Amino acid sequence: MSLPRAIEAVALATTASIAELPPRKHVLDLDDFTPSEIWALLESSRGMEEVLHRDIKKVPALRGRVVVTLFYEASTRTRVSFEQAGKVLSADVINVSTSGSSVEKGESLLNTGLTLQAMGADAIVIRHPHSGAPNLLARHLDRVGVINAGDGMHAHPTQALLDLYTIWKKLGRLEGLKVLIVGDVLHSRVARSNLWGFTRMGARMVICGPPTLLPLELLRSNEEAGGPPSLPSVEVDTDLDRAIQDADVVMALRLQAERQQSGFLPSLREYVRRWQVTPERLDRAKPGALLMHPGPMNEGIEISSSVAHGGNSVIEEQVANGVAVRMAVLYQLAAGRK
Amino acid sequence: MSLPRAIEAVALATTASIAELPPRKHVLDLDDFTPSEIWALLESSRGMEEVLHRDIKKVPALRGRVVVTLFYEASTRTRVSFEQAGKVLSADVINVSTSGSSVEKGESLLNTGLTLQAMGADAIVIRHPHSGAPNLLARHLDRVGVINAGDGMHAHPTQALLDLYTIWKKLGRLEGLKVLIVGDVLHSRVARSNLWGFTRMGARMVICGPPTLLPLELLRSNEEAGGPPSLPSVEVDTDLDRAIQDADVVMALRLQAERQQSGFLPSLREYVRRWQVTPERLDRAKPGALLMHPGPMNEGIEISSSVAHGGNSVIEEQVANGVAVRMAVLYQLAAGRK
Amino acid sequence: MSLPRAIEAVALATTASIAELPPRKHVLDLDDFTPSEIWALLESSRGMEEVLHRDIKKVPALRGRVVVTLFYEASTRTRVSFEQAGKVLSADVINVSTSGSSVEKGESLLNTGLTLQAMGADAIVIRHPHSGAPNLLARHLDRVGVINAGDGMHAHPTQALLDLYTIWKKLGRLEGLKVLIVGDVLHSRVARSNLWGFTRMGARMVICGPPTLLPLELLRSNEEAGGPPSLPSVEVDTDLDRAIQDADVVMALRLQAERQQSGFLPSLREYVRRWQVTPERLDRAKPGALLMHPGPMNEGIEISSSVAHGGNSVIEEQVANGVAVRMAVLYQLAAGRK
Repeated sequence: MSLPRAIEAVALATTASIAELPPRKHVLDLDDFTPSEIWALLESSRGMEEVLHRDIKKVPALRGRVVVTLFYEASTRTRVSFEQAGKVLSADVINVSTSGSSVEKGESLLNTGLTLQAMGADAIVIRHPHSGAPNLLARHLDRVGVINAGDGMHAHPTQALLDLYTIWKKLGRLEGLKVLIVGDVLHSRVARSNLWGFTRMGARMVICGPPTLLPLELLRSNEEAGGPPSLPSVEVDTDLDRAIQDADVVMALRLQAERQQSGFLPSLREYVRRWQVTPERLDRAKPGALLMHPGPMNEGIEISSSVAHGGNSVIEEQVANGVAVRMAVLYQLAAGRK
Repeated sequence: MSLPRAIEAVALATTASIAELPPRKHVLDLDDFTPSEIWALLESSRGMEEVLHRDIKKVPALRGRVVVTLFYEASTRTRVSFEQAGKVLSADVINVSTSGSSVEKGESLLNTGLTLQAMGADAIVIRHPHSGAPNLLARHLDRVGVINAGDGMHAHPTQALLDLYTIWKKLGRLEGLKVLIVGDVLHSRVARSNLWGFTRMGARMVICGPPTLLPLELLRSNEEAGGPPSLPSVEVDTDLDRAIQDADVVMALRLQAERQQSGFLPSLREYVRRWQVTPERLDRAKPGALLMHPGPMNEGIEISSSVAHGGNSVIEEQVANGVAVRMAVLYQLAAGRK
Repeated sequence: MSLPRAIEAVALATTASIAELPPRKHVLDLDDFTPSEIWALLESSRGMEEVLHRDIKKVPALRGRVVVTLFYEASTRTRVSFEQAGKVLSADVINVSTSGSSVEKGESLLNTGLTLQAMGADAIVIRHPHSGAPNLLARHLDRVGVINAGDGMHAHPTQALLDLYTIWKKLGRLEGLKVLIVGDVLHSRVARSNLWGFTRMGARMVICGPPTLLPLELLRSNEEAGGPPSLPSVEVDTDLDRAIQDADVVMALRLQAERQQSGFLPSLREYVRRWQVTPERLDRAKPGALLMHPGPMNEGIEISSSVAHGGNSVIEEQVANGVAVRMAVLYQLAAGRK
């Protein structure tokens, strides 16, 4: 065995435990994932997390691969999380954001995607204000893996995967858990992807919030229509004190202040009074229930500060796990490409 | 041979085929390139392209070298192309753009350049709205290679090099080809650098567009004046149907919408009618003629969508080749520095 | 010894000479540094500078460590200097700046810090318009080293360290030197950190400028109060011709134009006449005196162009040394973390 080959063999050996993932071209939402595919990603994430705890957080799994983050919306946490995930795997990460890009010259999203593909990108991590933008790219790009990092009110699959991973690690299972999502479910891509992911894995989902912020129409039309559902069927309860009872997991969503101006909310004070996750309310959940939030938080609005930083909170674990889960997703999409 | 030395020897061997380039300090425009120097860069680009097709797109040619992209104008494609070119060669790439830089504090371009040189940059890739900005840097920086990535209406030499490379690869030669550039030649740094490059390589150049957008004064004054020409001598034809006949290459330029407001254009509709590259017009060119565009495109203005994405289009090849050509340029400038 | 272990041993050996630094969690200002700790950093910087002069500017000292630059104010030179310092040490450097970050969503600084820590950052290099922002982070982050890259009017310790290093290298000593800082000392975090650093090392400090731009109140209250001083005790002289006499070092500070509007300055012309560092004035300093400026300069305001680029100027050395000093600081903070 020649020297460089020996080095490569050693290097790849360090990632051997994460090499067994089913082939997949894109990660657009969780609605086209089978439970076994989700399990494979969660297992792979566990291997990735082990890498993150090493003294030297670096494996050569994606050496010579190029990951482009293409962000049409600002986001520190998601972009940095993907950037670090790529770098730990030794990928070259190139950041493109709206400001300072030829997006300003009015180039179409599709042409931008084709350009990045032609330049040799192996994966494009896209965040976009319009629902379906990542799907558009995925339909037209055949040599690049597209990862949805949040599109409009549609989906945010890696957030849902890191939520699944966090709960699985903490509680040891997903099936049969009562998972409550509270807040502005209607406009939340995080909620939507989580509903798909958790129902796939056999959890019992409850959503709670002001009726104007719940996707009641969508759920109703699912029942009536014969076509493919735009949301899985879930339980709905507008009374948080009742809904939170015996929950294994309580996930608070960020409330966008601008919703109030749009008439979705009676008043912020009313919202806080009825739907803020407080210590008293959390006491009604199961003992040891997990408190989650996708961040960034409005402390004092949808969540009280003491709950956010309290003993049930796994919010920082969510952030930490996000890097591991995104490593698994990047690895699955970019490793096989040439 | 010690272990690290053995590793280095193996690593450098992988780039042996691209090591034979004449020494050069800066790449400011193509007007000071000899044909043999251009040939050397095109040959080198071929070696670089081979690297891009490997399973692991990475060679250590510029390990420990620092490439700074210094962009005073927004541009996804050019910046990303250089960034990837540098990273494939294992350089450290540092991005500096106007927003978020001390440029805002009013520091002079020259002091910014001196600062980057003092920090140890090996190459500065500069884009600037003012013609001649890269030349200013090059005159004052003696330890950094300056690469012009587009300056005002002056030059964009790596775009011209990638155009030359694309045509050479596709048609097997450059000499004697009829190359038509159509559109706003007057304001186009791409056109200007291409005119220098293609005439150097013995192509027959024709420019076409509305008289107000052609550099007629410049060409006339070249004839009259005794000094060095600001443009090589080329054929001019305002009738696209005539100019396109028997062309081997048709290059459409981006039309800046703001030109109309400045009175350079009678109306957009008139422009489209007379100077858009359409399938009918392309039929008048040579069979197998290449259709090119530096991007980003205004589909439906200077180029019809069917032509842009049609069988003659090599627009995506241009983008892909851009990475290889910029690898060759970065390698030539940065490899020898200490 | 297995192959990967052999490689690692060889790699680490290249940085053996820089491995002896006392443990330290954060670098917030120089007021909590002992002279021996400063000496250790200056010695370490010398080892780092040697790396920068190698043919291949790269050592694996921080391989697998993550350095985040978190800039709430624009700055090319400081951000690029830290970015390059990290990359020469093989760290993964991730840039976060205000524009394009979730800072815009109003996330608190502390939650941003907690998020970056959870993602696995080993060091956060922060620049912030509010004095004390880095201290806030340092108080709450236990797994990340915080480096102050300039906060409000408070401190800029790595600038002071690079100034100390530059003088030590040039003059061979620090103790007993007469160091003059001229200009807007009142608002300058650079001056403040330098006052701490230089007095610690036994230099004689003189500050000079318009009375409205000198921290007279602070100095007076130091004498009166019994608590810990907010500035070390220094000599004050508003007459530059007198103050500059026999100075070993003359450091001009950047004058912020907006100070005039705020009534701190009578007129720019008056300022230039009385406090600009000119060749005539520099002649009154010691022969071979060093002329310094933290940059970016307003040539013709606080400093004449001929002085800025003249024989006494070590301004470019300051920039170059900044990379070495920041390598030493990053190494000290990030090397031991897991």
